[in-house]
Amino acid sequence: MCSKTDSPENIVDALKYNSDGLIPAIAQQHDSGEILMMAWMNKEAVAETLKTGRVCYYSRSRQQLWRKGESSGQQQELIDFRTDCDKDTVLVSVNQTGVACHTGRRSCFSWAARDGKIETVEEVIVSPDKLYKK
Amino acid sequence: MCSKTDSPENIVDALKYNSDGLIPAIAQQHDSGEILMMAWMNKEAVAETLKTGRVCYYSRSRQQLWRKGESSGQQQELIDFRTDCDKDTVLVSVNQTGVACHTGRRSCFSWAARDGKIETVEEVIVSPDKLYKK
Repeated sequence: MCSKTDSPENIVDALKYNSDGLIPAIAQQHDSGEILMMAWMNKEAVAETLKTGRVCYYSRSRQQLWRKGESSGQQQELIDFRTDCDKDTVLVSVNQTGVACHTGRRSCFSWAARDGKIETVEEVIVSPDKLYKK
Repeated sequence: MCSKTDSPENIVDALKYNSDGLIPAIAQQHDSGEILMMAWMNKEAVAETLKTGRVCYYSRSRQQLWRKGESSGQQQELIDFRTDCDKDTVLVSVNQTGVACHTGRRSCFSWAARDGKIETVEEVIVSPDKLYKK
C-alpha cells in the first residue's frame, strides 16, 4: 500500500514524461480490478497525488491541474502508485467515490466492439446533471 | 465477448488518434483483472487486432507493427475490445501467454512507490534470456 509521502521528489524525477511534460496515468479500482479511466499527469500532478493521497491529473484541454472530483465530488483515494518497466506510464490503484466517467458511468471504458461497431455496454448510474450542478 | 470481425473499418475509424496517428492501448488480463502493459496502436494495428483476434501494437522505437509475442512467444489473445467516452484510448481484455513484460515479469507495472522511492515489487518469472533466444 502506498502511504502519503511528504518528499515525492525522487519518484517525480524517476518518471519519464513526453515532449509535452506529461505521462499517461491509468486508474484502476483497487478491489474489483475495474479500469476506470486513463488521463494524463505532469510532474506537479504526480507530486500532489503522492502528497495528498488523492489523485490529481493534468487537464490538457483546460491546461491546469485537475483534482479529480473537485467539482463533481467523485474523488479517487490513492491506494497504490505504480509505474512500468519503462517508467513512462503510471498505474494508480484507487478507491473511486461514485463514478469515474463524466457520462455518469462507473468506468470511462463503457464502449465495446460488437458486430463490427462500437456500442455502449454499461449503464448510466448517475445523471450527468447531478454530477455537475449548475 | 469480442468476436473476430472481417470488417473492422467502422471501429478503426471511430477511434481518435493523436497527431502521430497513434492511440494508447491498455492490456488487462481478462480473468484476474491485472493490468499487464500499456502500449500504442495505429489504425493498422487496431484493424489487425480485430481481424486476427491476437493483439498487435505499433512499436514507436522500431516504427513498425508489433505483433505481441511474435519473437518471444508471449502472445495476447483478444477477449474483448473496449474504448472510452472520448474514444481516444483502447482497453483490450486479453488472455496473456506467459509474461507480458520484457523483463520476464507477468506485468510491466511491477514498480511501486515505497518510502519515497520506486522499488520493484514483483518477481521475475521467466529469464529474459529465455524470452529472446539468440
